[in-house]
Amino acid sequence: MTTMIDRLAIIGVGLIGGSFARALREAGAVGSVVGIGRSRANLLEALSLGICDEITQDVLEGVKGASMVFISVPVCSIPGVVAKIAPALAPGCIVTDGGSVKTGIVRECEAHIPAGCHFVGGHPIAGTEHSGAAASFATLYQGKRCILTPAEKTDPAALETVARIWRLTGADVCFMEPGHHDRIFAEISHLPHAVAYALVHAVGTADVEGENVLSYTAGGFRDFTRIASSDPIMWRDISLMNRDALLASIDGFSASLAELRRRIDSGDQAGLTDFFTTAKQFRDAIV
Amino acid sequence: MTTMIDRLAIIGVGLIGGSFARALREAGAVGSVVGIGRSRANLLEALSLGICDEITQDVLEGVKGASMVFISVPVCSIPGVVAKIAPALAPGCIVTDGGSVKTGIVRECEAHIPAGCHFVGGHPIAGTEHSGAAASFATLYQGKRCILTPAEKTDPAALETVARIWRLTGADVCFMEPGHHDRIFAEISHLPHAVAYALVHAVGTADVEGENVLSYTAGGFRDFTRIASSDPIMWRDISLMNRDALLASIDGFSASLAELRRRIDSGDQAGLTDFFTTAKQFRDAIV
Repeated sequence: MTTMIDRLAIIGVGLIGGSFARALREAGAVGSVVGIGRSRANLLEALSLGICDEITQDVLEGVKGASMVFISVPVCSIPGVVAKIAPALAPGCIVTDGGSVKTGIVRECEAHIPAGCHFVGGHPIAGTEHSGAAASFATLYQGKRCILTPAEKTDPAALETVARIWRLTGADVCFMEPGHHDRIFAEISHLPHAVAYALVHAVGTADVEGENVLSYTAGGFRDFTRIASSDPIMWRDISLMNRDALLASIDGFSASLAELRRRIDSGDQAGLTDFFTTAKQFRDAIV
Repeated sequence: MTTMIDRLAIIGVGLIGGSFARALREAGAVGSVVGIGRSRANLLEALSLGICDEITQDVLEGVKGASMVFISVPVCSIPGVVAKIAPALAPGCIVTDGGSVKTGIVRECEAHIPAGCHFVGGHPIAGTEHSGAAASFATLYQGKRCILTPAEKTDPAALETVARIWRLTGADVCFMEPGHHDRIFAEISHLPHAVAYALVHAVGTADVEGENVLSYTAGGFRDFTRIASSDPIMWRDISLMNRDALLASIDGFSASLAELRRRIDSGDQAGLTDFFTTAKQFRDAIV
């Protein structure tokens, strides 16, 4: 394998960024890797783990001379990072990201990227419950899907380079219009989180003769509501960045729940059997 | 330990009924156990596993001379079973159940139970994803909660006997008015199931540019929606038997979701942080 990226800059060397660098190192696809971040402790750990060759907390210094910049910071910070690094980017540099919301990020990053450089939006569907450089590993993306979201202005050659790079991590690359991506993830990821948070909120504040209802919960409730233990700030940001699609998904869900409620209320045995059976079939089909 | 129950009849020798018999046998608390059910294959298995001393598919024959009858059949069948066995019950016999909805069952079973016999409603909070006699084991109830739901007519001595018997299985017995039980379980069990079914229904029928959205789901969605793979008939019955409490729980949840939707729609950053943080605190407190 010949080196494809002379110098790779990773902004945010956590689970996602660190695993990206590790996988490309193992594939022999990078010359040198510079790790950039705000936590010096995490950067030192990334350096000692061999994820990076150099580290810096100065983002402008870090991206200098990079042929590719991978941004893996919280979604709402991505456009600001691109705006900040724009003046320091080398001609021809490709900037890409790993954010889980794409429409706003692609639009804003394209507006910030300087002429002669390229932005390509991406979203690897991989993760674990751990975070930080120490949690990263080279095979995180093996067999996982990575969605790239080209828009009208996306440079075809830059897109192809990013796709080849992701394939070298072991990911299965697919392409999708940013709005389409956001509508799909509103349904399968952002809606379930909103529902889980709302459920725990409702049950936690329910007043059943003054008793703490949550003290009666068992394993089933804990499993069902696990995702409501996710980072509140991250989900605030995702909710706001994918607002329109998420609101539409919530409305679709509310309509389904209202239909189920109607069938319970009217004692519609056949209608309930049909509703539960249809849902079970959808669920069993994805196992 | 002296024998407390000369003759125990188990109607429905599955995970719940079989484990109840096994635990009491190990505690030396039963003389003989008769297993009653519709599936001869399951009864033969229960017999060969040593769960029962005798088996029969004739419920009237089976309960004859029993000092205690434990009914572990689907919730909506319990009152009918009590009505059917009533003429065959020996004087002083205590009938109890393991159903997960209590108000309707207690009311109807009390109406069917003959003078001189007693009905005590119960709900052991235990289970696994397996079913049938072969799935039962003596320690299923160890350290688990068993809720007994006395009503106005409940005989105090019969209630105390059932409580002692459950304690011998290793369960932690508590007492609760049937309506209170049903409002609590509407919140922590029936509502989550309704929500999971409605979510899978909504996502499964969502039209995102004609694409099958479910093909993009990953582990998080699968875990969150696992309970929507439960038995549709069982959940139809529970929904209808606990209709009023479940409708109230659905309405409480819908109000929480509407509030979350309002905060997303208005871009209320502080309100979203607060909502997600409060929910996360409720969730983390039950881990």
